Amino acid sequence: MTNRTSPYPEETARGHAAMIDSRLLKNLRSLFLPDTVAVIGASDNPGKLGFHVMQSLTTGHFAGTIVPINPGSDTIMGINAYPSVTAFEEPVDLAIVVLPAKLVPNTFEECIEKEVKGIVLITAGFKEIDDPKGAELQKALAQMAGEAGIPVVGPNTFGMVNLHHNLNASFTPQFSWLQKGNISLVSQSGGISHLIAFMAMKQDIGMSKIVGLGNRLNVDFAEMLAYLVDDPDTQVIILYLEGLDEPRRLIQVAAQNRNRKPIVAYKTGNAEVGDSASLSHTGSMAGKHEIYEGALKQSGILCIDNTEILLDTARAMSMCPLPRGGRVAILSGQAGPGMAASDVCEAEGLNIATFRPRTQEVINELLPPLALRTNPVDMGPAWYNASAIAGIVKAVMDDENVDAILLLMMFASANREAVAGISALLLEWKQRKPIIACLISPPGIWDEQVVALEKGSALVNVPTPERAARVMANLWQSRKLMDGGKNG
Amino acid sequence: MTNRTSPYPEETARGHAAMIDSRLLKNLRSLFLPDTVAVIGASDNPGKLGFHVMQSLTTGHFAGTIVPINPGSDTIMGINAYPSVTAFEEPVDLAIVVLPAKLVPNTFEECIEKEVKGIVLITAGFKEIDDPKGAELQKALAQMAGEAGIPVVGPNTFGMVNLHHNLNASFTPQFSWLQKGNISLVSQSGGISHLIAFMAMKQDIGMSKIVGLGNRLNVDFAEMLAYLVDDPDTQVIILYLEGLDEPRRLIQVAAQNRNRKPIVAYKTGNAEVGDSASLSHTGSMAGKHEIYEGALKQSGILCIDNTEILLDTARAMSMCPLPRGGRVAILSGQAGPGMAASDVCEAEGLNIATFRPRTQEVINELLPPLALRTNPVDMGPAWYNASAIAGIVKAVMDDENVDAILLLMMFASANREAVAGISALLLEWKQRKPIIACLISPPGIWDEQVVALEKGSALVNVPTPERAARVMANLWQSRKLMDGGKNG
Repeated sequence: MTNRTSPYPEETARGHAAMIDSRLLKNLRSLFLPDTVAVIGASDNPGKLGFHVMQSLTTGHFAGTIVPINPGSDTIMGINAYPSVTAFEEPVDLAIVVLPAKLVPNTFEECIEKEVKGIVLITAGFKEIDDPKGAELQKALAQMAGEAGIPVVGPNTFGMVNLHHNLNASFTPQFSWLQKGNISLVSQSGGISHLIAFMAMKQDIGMSKIVGLGNRLNVDFAEMLAYLVDDPDTQVIILYLEGLDEPRRLIQVAAQNRNRKPIVAYKTGNAEVGDSASLSHTGSMAGKHEIYEGALKQSGILCIDNTEILLDTARAMSMCPLPRGGRVAILSGQAGPGMAASDVCEAEGLNIATFRPRTQEVINELLPPLALRTNPVDMGPAWYNASAIAGIVKAVMDDENVDAILLLMMFASANREAVAGISALLLEWKQRKPIIACLISPPGIWDEQVVALEKGSALVNVPTPERAARVMANLWQSRKLMDGGKNG
Repeated sequence: MTNRTSPYPEETARGHAAMIDSRLLKNLRSLFLPDTVAVIGASDNPGKLGFHVMQSLTTGHFAGTIVPINPGSDTIMGINAYPSVTAFEEPVDLAIVVLPAKLVPNTFEECIEKEVKGIVLITAGFKEIDDPKGAELQKALAQMAGEAGIPVVGPNTFGMVNLHHNLNASFTPQFSWLQKGNISLVSQSGGISHLIAFMAMKQDIGMSKIVGLGNRLNVDFAEMLAYLVDDPDTQVIILYLEGLDEPRRLIQVAAQNRNRKPIVAYKTGNAEVGDSASLSHTGSMAGKHEIYEGALKQSGILCIDNTEILLDTARAMSMCPLPRGGRVAILSGQAGPGMAASDVCEAEGLNIATFRPRTQEVINELLPPLALRTNPVDMGPAWYNASAIAGIVKAVMDDENVDAILLLMMFASANREAVAGISALLLEWKQRKPIIACLISPPGIWDEQVVALEKGSALVNVPTPERAARVMANLWQSRKLMDGGKNG
């Protein structure tokens, strides 16, 4: 699997310190939280990536010092520019490099002389190109950075973003439109990173860090994971993988940190054609899907197979506890969505809970005999009766035979007040067991109430019953993986 | 499978006429296109479904005559009311019944006397309840309606909607918010019908008819299919099924009409618990999933396993041609989304096309050597060069080795003009081969351009690369099923 010389000590099972260069890990902190950022290749020309990077930093409201480096300009975007990073008098924490590949070795020398703490190398044209000179050049850069202990994000990347530091070190200024949150994304694809960021924007999902690893000069998934498990701004970690040179390092760091934070991974490049695409894309073979998935699972990482469920699941993990067991209650306002959810629950390893006798009695008192009163419960006949719905929800929340709740209700004119009727109850309950909901109305009817419930930590709302069930199944799988199969 | 007396002639393979009551089919036309609609059980009390039904008709701008029937009121919502349907002097085409179950037999007698052409029976409390009296009552009603040749939608339904006739014969006035389109939905679940309608609203997807079959007194999937294949306002048919008493009738009508209109089906109730839910819900056992799916496929119906892909697929079918083969070109603006789509294509039975030599030459001329130039094509290096991207897209559209195109591009600052650069080309091409796109930007950047492309029949845009690939695979599966496996 390994086809390049590792800048790291030999892989061992001896632990974190043995696998991760400690200087590099320490410097990652300065890379993500810099006071001063130099943009080497900054430009006033919108046809250059150096223009967009400058825009990202300035419109992203970075509070530190921005130092444009360009030997041909005195100022860029109205900011004093310098001919080289060494010409700037003060220390530089982070250098973002957007020069042509052939100029990068000299730039690295200057960065090392300047004692920068980290580099984001956006430039492409290294290991990913057909010409073997690309790989040689990358190897030489890895050697230089490795000796100096400088972490390098890239090359061949859009860059990275730390929203909590207002640091947008990428060529896409719009990343700064994201809300601050506690989900961090580490990705081998710029396209997927942009997609997930735009999906998050549209759903008002906050993010913490987004890191495009590119060709992974010396910052790979293992380094990022070691950093993020200790990052106070990160509660959930998303990995998007295409292939790894050293999968064991990631697996070992993950296994050592099992049960600290939920980690979800999406791996593509499973198709035969995808595999060759992966090789060219970031210079790695994707490798056999099953082997990857098995290894990731063994180290406590949950594998997911598409971007939407990936983000749904990460969002739910960032908002609610993982269930303590796999016994789910399905409370629905109509039978059909409950059946759709049941099918997914059964297929994905959740159990339809059997209620305690006392819970069942309460439900039987509150629903007429023509209703589906056992789990999944069809609360349809109680539409007009907000207190009956609240009574059912309360009884199920308190039932120790229930680990998790799916709450599914489609608006119909007669049930307009149903969400209002359970809001106080849900807000007071605050997800002591995870509640994934699918409360769906025509635009403008329930939207504000549902947002208020989400902001009040009362539930996580998703667009379909099937997605609600898949997300809950993922939370339960993640709990089992984090516990090391104890519950399995 | 059959557990009730059928109001139909014995099932045979002799054809449409033998399976479908011709009077009933003829009267379905009046049911969907009535001039005069009576609401039996109309009410001014918002606590009654009869209130919401009146609201649906009035706020839905029904252009015909609305006749509220309620012995206790002279007017309802300012419209003259009558004590019974027979007390109204003019003919009544459609009667919507929202009375308690025990009053329904008498109402049916009056409707038969009045020679109404169709009934929507919203009332619940028939075959779906535990008490065997419910099933008996339903059987008696079926007998009455069958002898009179009156089609009955329901009982135990939200009703039905024909948007092209501004007819909202349901208890949910908001169905009228939908745009007019050419997708019709026939459903065994009110919840799923509402969900799909609200999803369609949020995505500006037009609908034609939405029919809640409920307990299927005498209008079952077979009748609806026979009607919709001839309905000029319907181009794509969605079926949501939980279980059937007479699956053979549906299968035979579908098989006879194979290759007329694409039909997509979603069947739930596959889980053990779902099966018992189904029994109570609409009085039918769901039955073995594999048997259903096999039978549906054999009759040319495409089976889909969740609401989102169901609606995505129906929408695509309503907007673009089905591909003539399974050879797909993946043109992406970044490698990652192309890989994600490739994985799905391979898993779902599409082939990654090998371009003609001439096409490959054009691409090689337009992209630098470091790019992925074979299929899937990474057009990333041509971001700045709108004419290069247009040249690649044009060459691939014209390639006879390509049956279908996935066009995947995530916004990044440098490719802002990429969509504008190919718009004229795509609009002129007008989907001579199906183009499913995933063109995604932060809110407000590409949205209007993408809507213009969709309105101009240039492509179908979906939210993720995986969904684009799944939808295209479904179009190809549907083509094969409609052709009777000739291409399989």
